[in-house]
Amino acid sequence: MINKLIQKIEQSKAPIVVGLDPMLSYIPEHVKEKAFQEKGETLAGAAEAIWQFNKAIVDATWDIIPAVKPQIAMYEQFGIEGMIAFKKTVDYCKEKDLVVIGDIKRGDIGSTSAAYATAHLGKVKVGNNSFYGFDEDFATVNPYFGSDGVDPFIEVCKEEKKGLFILVKTSNPSSGEFQDQLIDGKPLYELVGEKVAEWGEKCMGDQYSYIGAVVGATYPKMGKILRKIMPKTYILVPGYGAQGGKGKDLVHYFNKDGLGAIVNSSRGIIAAYKQAEYEKFGPTAYADASRQAVIDMREDIMGALSK
Amino acid sequence: MINKLIQKIEQSKAPIVVGLDPMLSYIPEHVKEKAFQEKGETLAGAAEAIWQFNKAIVDATWDIIPAVKPQIAMYEQFGIEGMIAFKKTVDYCKEKDLVVIGDIKRGDIGSTSAAYATAHLGKVKVGNNSFYGFDEDFATVNPYFGSDGVDPFIEVCKEEKKGLFILVKTSNPSSGEFQDQLIDGKPLYELVGEKVAEWGEKCMGDQYSYIGAVVGATYPKMGKILRKIMPKTYILVPGYGAQGGKGKDLVHYFNKDGLGAIVNSSRGIIAAYKQAEYEKFGPTAYADASRQAVIDMREDIMGALSK
Repeated sequence: MINKLIQKIEQSKAPIVVGLDPMLSYIPEHVKEKAFQEKGETLAGAAEAIWQFNKAIVDATWDIIPAVKPQIAMYEQFGIEGMIAFKKTVDYCKEKDLVVIGDIKRGDIGSTSAAYATAHLGKVKVGNNSFYGFDEDFATVNPYFGSDGVDPFIEVCKEEKKGLFILVKTSNPSSGEFQDQLIDGKPLYELVGEKVAEWGEKCMGDQYSYIGAVVGATYPKMGKILRKIMPKTYILVPGYGAQGGKGKDLVHYFNKDGLGAIVNSSRGIIAAYKQAEYEKFGPTAYADASRQAVIDMREDIMGALSK
Repeated sequence: MINKLIQKIEQSKAPIVVGLDPMLSYIPEHVKEKAFQEKGETLAGAAEAIWQFNKAIVDATWDIIPAVKPQIAMYEQFGIEGMIAFKKTVDYCKEKDLVVIGDIKRGDIGSTSAAYATAHLGKVKVGNNSFYGFDEDFATVNPYFGSDGVDPFIEVCKEEKKGLFILVKTSNPSSGEFQDQLIDGKPLYELVGEKVAEWGEKCMGDQYSYIGAVVGATYPKMGKILRKIMPKTYILVPGYGAQGGKGKDLVHYFNKDGLGAIVNSSRGIIAAYKQAEYEKFGPTAYADASRQAVIDMREDIMGALSK
């Protein structure tokens, strides 16, 4: 799957992933009204609004992006109905041949991580049959449990030819509280980065490992160091745009081959029509605003990389 | 909710939580057969088997235990159908007035943690209405993101009078890989424990904080130290029984008031009928075997505490 992701990045010339993290407040009134008319001001109505919103954005961007990253929390908050909208979104994006990164940040002791890996990447056996649960292509994983919490995810990735992005240095302001603590003079995130590189060696695609890392756009100096520590690791970079990162800050997340990183933007793309820059599209053409925001983001990043 | 948990522990004299982590392999053949006859060898069939299995165990134990802890991964692996079985289990246990600890180990950047907190502890607004998503009483939380990943959970707990158990030292063999790393001579788990105590001060119940900690039964020396670092923190202790912990190892997880810890057992109780000790019950009386395992576990722990 890492080979497919790289191939799609090279084709689209867009090392970009669209974060499908729909808050109800991002969704234009006319979309919500229609969904509420059909299903009421209920969890089912909210889930319908999210799904219609996502579908329009995917329809307007799928041909110029390699991947999407639905954040499962945004769906989980609407209970079962929200989870159904998550699954519909995953399936629809796969129909469009997009690579789907399930942003699930799971992680637990071995037997429980095995269940999460089955849920999101693998198949579960029921009697004589097997079924995929949510069936994303990649999943994000929390490393706090150490190797035996990560290994079951790696096992399923090997079977299914899928991949992971393991949290190394997260984009949020307080990520340093634990992640930056020095251990023999070296911050914890570097130690985690070394482990990710080690885990990744067991799982190589053609050029890069199936086992990627998450490093926030908001910490570019650390990104530069982590790039060197994990040379064969694809880096998923959240925090672009709304969280503060810009293309010029991100050049060191990439390798000299122009590969090695994929940058996420969520709000900046899916709620583009709410920003001054894209106001002219108006709420009815919100998906066109999203397409334009993808094009501008691609130019910002590719422009910075070509310098 | 911490007050209710303590009250129920005192009433039942059982500082015990039953881990409702049903693997299909734990479920007796006759339960699976019935479910598969009704719904086929499908995800819906598996979910039905899990639900019927859970229900019988809850019916056989609810009057002698204070709390249950469903592990969401075990449900998530069966996709949407599994999530429906999770929600049914949560609702049924609450009908039985059990305290429900959602073992979800979520955690993310602030806005995403807020969505997870809403999903599992709070209410989501849809138009003019509000709805609970999964509506557990407590949730387990991963601290890797630091304060701003935990704060949104604390906010919802304050509004809803609910609680958390934050991972400090996990029970698995490789937990030390990152958690035991020394920072200025002090292991990371102690640093996290200090933070949990600090977060907990903002959220006090009558005697203990709403903000608890997870410390594995498999590391009793560390448990003793963490007890002192977090004197007002309730400790959720996984790893009893199947993972190796015994009552005598756990006395130092408790305070002198006999409170301060609640010990989880999953496999040891829900799959008791598969162990030599409870074989005499046979698969048809699996729920009675579970009840006996609860009684034996209570004796083991209370016996150790009374010494």
